[in-house]
Amino acid sequence: MTFRDKLVHATQQNGSLLCVGLDPDPARLHGADVTTFLCSIVHATADLVCAYKPNLAFYEQLGDEGAAALRAVLRAIPDHVPVIADAKRGDIGHTAEAYARALFDELDVDAATVNPYLGADAVEPFLVRPDKTALIVCRTSNPGAGDFQDLRVDGGRPLYEVVAERAKSWDTRGNVGLVAGATYPSEMVRLREICPDMPFLIPGIGAQEGKVATAVRAGLDARGAGIIVNASRQVLYDGDRCRSEESARAEAERLRDAIEQARAETLQELTT
Amino acid sequence: MTFRDKLVHATQQNGSLLCVGLDPDPARLHGADVTTFLCSIVHATADLVCAYKPNLAFYEQLGDEGAAALRAVLRAIPDHVPVIADAKRGDIGHTAEAYARALFDELDVDAATVNPYLGADAVEPFLVRPDKTALIVCRTSNPGAGDFQDLRVDGGRPLYEVVAERAKSWDTRGNVGLVAGATYPSEMVRLREICPDMPFLIPGIGAQEGKVATAVRAGLDARGAGIIVNASRQVLYDGDRCRSEESARAEAERLRDAIEQARAETLQELTT
Repeated sequence: MTFRDKLVHATQQNGSLLCVGLDPDPARLHGADVTTFLCSIVHATADLVCAYKPNLAFYEQLGDEGAAALRAVLRAIPDHVPVIADAKRGDIGHTAEAYARALFDELDVDAATVNPYLGADAVEPFLVRPDKTALIVCRTSNPGAGDFQDLRVDGGRPLYEVVAERAKSWDTRGNVGLVAGATYPSEMVRLREICPDMPFLIPGIGAQEGKVATAVRAGLDARGAGIIVNASRQVLYDGDRCRSEESARAEAERLRDAIEQARAETLQELTT
Repeated sequence: MTFRDKLVHATQQNGSLLCVGLDPDPARLHGADVTTFLCSIVHATADLVCAYKPNLAFYEQLGDEGAAALRAVLRAIPDHVPVIADAKRGDIGHTAEAYARALFDELDVDAATVNPYLGADAVEPFLVRPDKTALIVCRTSNPGAGDFQDLRVDGGRPLYEVVAERAKSWDTRGNVGLVAGATYPSEMVRLREICPDMPFLIPGIGAQEGKVATAVRAGLDARGAGIIVNASRQVLYDGDRCRSEESARAEAERLRDAIEQARAETLQELTT
């Protein structure tokens, strides 16, 4: 199954556009076993999500223990739920091929986030596998996102719009998406105009304070789908503590339902 | 010792501005042991280089074997030779902190390449450690480098120049450098005008066909230093085969001497 097939299937089966970010934070683990904790989160939420998204940074900081935890977590995720490796890789063609092998073969994930700054030949190795999807980092959720992404380029358009247009031109196999931060909904509206059919990975709700309803309204495609709304810290942690399975499940359910409600309201407005 | 102190020391001790990229390529290893091969390259070249640069992509594609090889290679590099992790990481602040820990603490390298697309707060966690250096990916060596890096932004300047100016503004601790591809010497001249004192990591000679003398001339700072000229495939492989220690040493020596000759000629022109 391709990433997009898996995504549609998990979305429908779980009635969910929620993606849970599986990011171990040593400062909040207080000595708890990384693998046990993350597998408990998967166990508690697997019927509430449309995807999982481990961000590799949080594993890499843990060295060999992190690498082992990542493998264990990937094994714990049910086969029918797609996995996005949030890696934001980007390098010249020959090296990008190695990154694509690392993510799509060695880790065997279904999709990966890819940084566009190095140009088309740096992205191409992620596109040649029709079963895998490349989510192009376009307009990010952080305070400094605009430092470069908002610079006006030829014709006065911001750089992130040009990135979206190029990403659209790369999408000859139906396996390209965008990363669009929940914290910048008006930018997301523009991205949806440029790329009406692409899946958007939307980080920035919860700990980063993006509003769920606003993000859903901005990002939904014409069919009332096409968004993958990610929450990491909010589902995994309560303040500086790891959540229990019950607590993580309740938080994921609350977010899933908030997304679903915003989706239903947006669709109702569109049809009236 | 800081990265820059180590770099100056290794440059002087070895009379070299050559950096050797330690990138294992399974297609050329033909079953040879990764660690043994890479350690043989270090053994053969440690007195000929100013730095080593493992590109993490090539290790990540090998899974656990690659992670073990990377650790072994890092141990094999003499303490006085600085190590640049070519990782091109870039993520939002909280995640960038995890990447900085992964590279600067867990792997304990001296410098890392960093992608600027996410803005200042994505780079900041790499800058707060005065002993470590962040080499900002600015103008890369690949054919598609200009897809975004050459886009004209406010005032008609190409994006890569704006990145260089921002990088300069981030350099309050003397621990910022740029990545500037050997294949685009006129762009490198502009970068040197903007950032007269920064170290430039220069990939793209050898397999990528950048001319050594042209790159050296374009990148040298006013003191006849400030460049780290990287060769990976050319030193490690002869066609599709791994080089012997003797062959790798001869190739590294040839490149070191070619760089030194170009440096001497450029300095002579500057003083006459």
